Amino acid sequence: MNTRLHPIDGARTFGAREREAFARDLFDQLRAMSVDGPGVSRDSYGPGEQQAIEHVAAIARDEGLAVAFDAAANLVITLPGADPDAPAIICGSHLDSVPQGGNFDGAAGVIAGLMALIRMKRAGIVPPRTIRVMSLRGEESAWFGQCYLGSSALFGELAADDLARTHRVTGRALDDYMKQAGAEIGRIAAGERLLEPECVSAYLELHIEQGPVMVARDMPVAIVTGLRGNFRHLKIVCRGEAGHAGAVPRWLRHDAVMATADLLMRLDEHWRVLLERGLDLVLTAGILSTNPEEHAMSRIPGECTFSLEVRSQSLDTLEAFYQLLRRAADSVGRERGVAFEFDRRSLSRPARMDERWVAHLLDTARTLQLNAEPIPSGAGHDAAVFANAGVPSAMIFVRNDHGSHNPKEAMEISDFLYGADVLYHAILDPPQ
Amino acid sequence: MNTRLHPIDGARTFGAREREAFARDLFDQLRAMSVDGPGVSRDSYGPGEQQAIEHVAAIARDEGLAVAFDAAANLVITLPGADPDAPAIICGSHLDSVPQGGNFDGAAGVIAGLMALIRMKRAGIVPPRTIRVMSLRGEESAWFGQCYLGSSALFGELAADDLARTHRVTGRALDDYMKQAGAEIGRIAAGERLLEPECVSAYLELHIEQGPVMVARDMPVAIVTGLRGNFRHLKIVCRGEAGHAGAVPRWLRHDAVMATADLLMRLDEHWRVLLERGLDLVLTAGILSTNPEEHAMSRIPGECTFSLEVRSQSLDTLEAFYQLLRRAADSVGRERGVAFEFDRRSLSRPARMDERWVAHLLDTARTLQLNAEPIPSGAGHDAAVFANAGVPSAMIFVRNDHGSHNPKEAMEISDFLYGADVLYHAILDPPQ
Repeated sequence: MNTRLHPIDGARTFGAREREAFARDLFDQLRAMSVDGPGVSRDSYGPGEQQAIEHVAAIARDEGLAVAFDAAANLVITLPGADPDAPAIICGSHLDSVPQGGNFDGAAGVIAGLMALIRMKRAGIVPPRTIRVMSLRGEESAWFGQCYLGSSALFGELAADDLARTHRVTGRALDDYMKQAGAEIGRIAAGERLLEPECVSAYLELHIEQGPVMVARDMPVAIVTGLRGNFRHLKIVCRGEAGHAGAVPRWLRHDAVMATADLLMRLDEHWRVLLERGLDLVLTAGILSTNPEEHAMSRIPGECTFSLEVRSQSLDTLEAFYQLLRRAADSVGRERGVAFEFDRRSLSRPARMDERWVAHLLDTARTLQLNAEPIPSGAGHDAAVFANAGVPSAMIFVRNDHGSHNPKEAMEISDFLYGADVLYHAILDPPQ
Repeated sequence: MNTRLHPIDGARTFGAREREAFARDLFDQLRAMSVDGPGVSRDSYGPGEQQAIEHVAAIARDEGLAVAFDAAANLVITLPGADPDAPAIICGSHLDSVPQGGNFDGAAGVIAGLMALIRMKRAGIVPPRTIRVMSLRGEESAWFGQCYLGSSALFGELAADDLARTHRVTGRALDDYMKQAGAEIGRIAAGERLLEPECVSAYLELHIEQGPVMVARDMPVAIVTGLRGNFRHLKIVCRGEAGHAGAVPRWLRHDAVMATADLLMRLDEHWRVLLERGLDLVLTAGILSTNPEEHAMSRIPGECTFSLEVRSQSLDTLEAFYQLLRRAADSVGRERGVAFEFDRRSLSRPARMDERWVAHLLDTARTLQLNAEPIPSGAGHDAAVFANAGVPSAMIFVRNDHGSHNPKEAMEISDFLYGADVLYHAILDPPQ
């Protein structure tokens, strides 16, 4: 794609109409370069994400903004502040997507940050602190089975077995992809901190809401108070014993599908009870399959594989549910003569947003006459990694219909521009 | 494979030692030509079955037996009887296998029949009735989603949508495969009877047991009293709604995996209750999967597909369970906001074996000093198709460990030879 947006010659302003056109065009361009069936696919650290990042970088360079890539190959676009030595504000999000996902999940935050920088740059405004817009790599877990790759790498939190995870389509290892994207894999593998939290004044992320709350409450923009953490198993294998579907009576069966269904229903019941107690929890087995190399309609299934993801705003609830999971798996295993094999559990801690920044964003929204309220985030974001590393973090949610991680996600550009406006004014006049 | 067994020159006898060597060699040759991973794969009406049939046909020709293919491309090896106009006895079974299945399921019956003919032919014995050994095509449902293809075709019971079923690997239609194998597809599609039941004196099938009963009861040979019928859905699709795994609360989800697990557990409970009431039933969901083109660990699964097979010796029980299934699917659909889409149900009726032949086979076994008892068959066989078409039918089971439809099936050749001996003597002196 060589088409550039708004050549800078003679275009020194960036008014409301121009911002709207810019946003529409850039979203359309990103979609066009990553169309996959009904949605878009931009694979983490792969060609899909790379192409989107390069496109955004080219636009930033055309605007005269400084473009660089950090040691984890994250894109960093910088506008120097009045005090270049003071810790900078980072406006981050991501440009990867789940397979056949939506176009706005992630991209909205990067575009909003870029638009804020262009708006200042064209107007000759020097913000009090340096502002960096970052496209953080590999936010989606769909490709390598682990999320927040780029931000985790920055804080020395990618372990050797994370780096050995393989791409869902190509089977190539993550470290190979990272190297190819230009990441300093040796420092990352050593767990080195590539970014000191003390050097970051704040991490701000604009993102579409992925749940149904803002549509239901007619709220174009909301400010996030905290993020759910999660534990995940990409692959739990139930091993039973294959057999003739007609000739083995019920009591002699070791049916892996029935055992898996039994376990899922026990977890579903635990979930229901915990919700009634007022605890925060969601539970998803998104991938499920018998073994295609041996399954048949007339064969008792000897193997069934599934993923499991559990999210909560409370680390205690996550831990308690993990114990329930393991006990239920043991019980089903004993009762049905099967064994459940768990791969390594990955854990993302829940995160609280910075109270001062939450208040500042709410104030800014109110000044712009927006009905923005504080809400929790059901989904996780890179903001959780920054917050848990000690960086004051906050998020702006933009209303979006039909959820996310599916091609039907629907954000109105007008709502996006409201959110981008909140971000712009908030970083132009940050809390002291 | 050009290697022939026992060239007829100078080998006019077929004693016990020769029969054992013949059986071992022929089983080994069939295995060698269809090895696939840990087991054997001989696809119905495909190259796997074709090669096995041609090998057996070549051996029969070498023995001077008449070899032909009927209008459904079933192999027919004939030894004329003393009264060539009297209805013939058919000794049948099949040479196809499930994918990565065992070597004995099906092949044992064809080899036992062939050995009986060779034994008579070499000894110059003319049996009272003509005897035909048949390798019936496509007994296994694993390849086209429907079983008993060759025998059903003979009795005009393959419907147009059966013929349109597609091969699990190649996607090519069954009628295409049948045509290529030499079947008269026009007559079959028209539902013409290719074999008149009145022209068959009896259908006899030797087969390995596919359940654990004979091993447990130390019984090398058993005589079958009746066969379970079944109903089957190759593909039931549960359609829910995809969504972000973190952002949609439990009460707003339409999770296709949880709904499928719920349905399976309700069926499992119905099954348990029916068994307690003394009814005969087995239930298997052998194939299960979320949609690989869109599933992800962090996405609520919007689609889950599974097969369902239910077997019983009672047609009433099958019908009653089918009603339970549809009611349970409706309930789960309403409660969880999903819809279950059922493909066409295929139905195989249960079958009773002919009492006179059952008694004759039991007598024959006792004469040979074998501890053979009458037992029901949990699995279905071509014998059910012949029986339900009105042909007096009976089956000899041979002891076999580890069940069937898996590579670990284990039949002792000594047990096979006992079973083959029962078959030989029974058809040499059939009941009047």
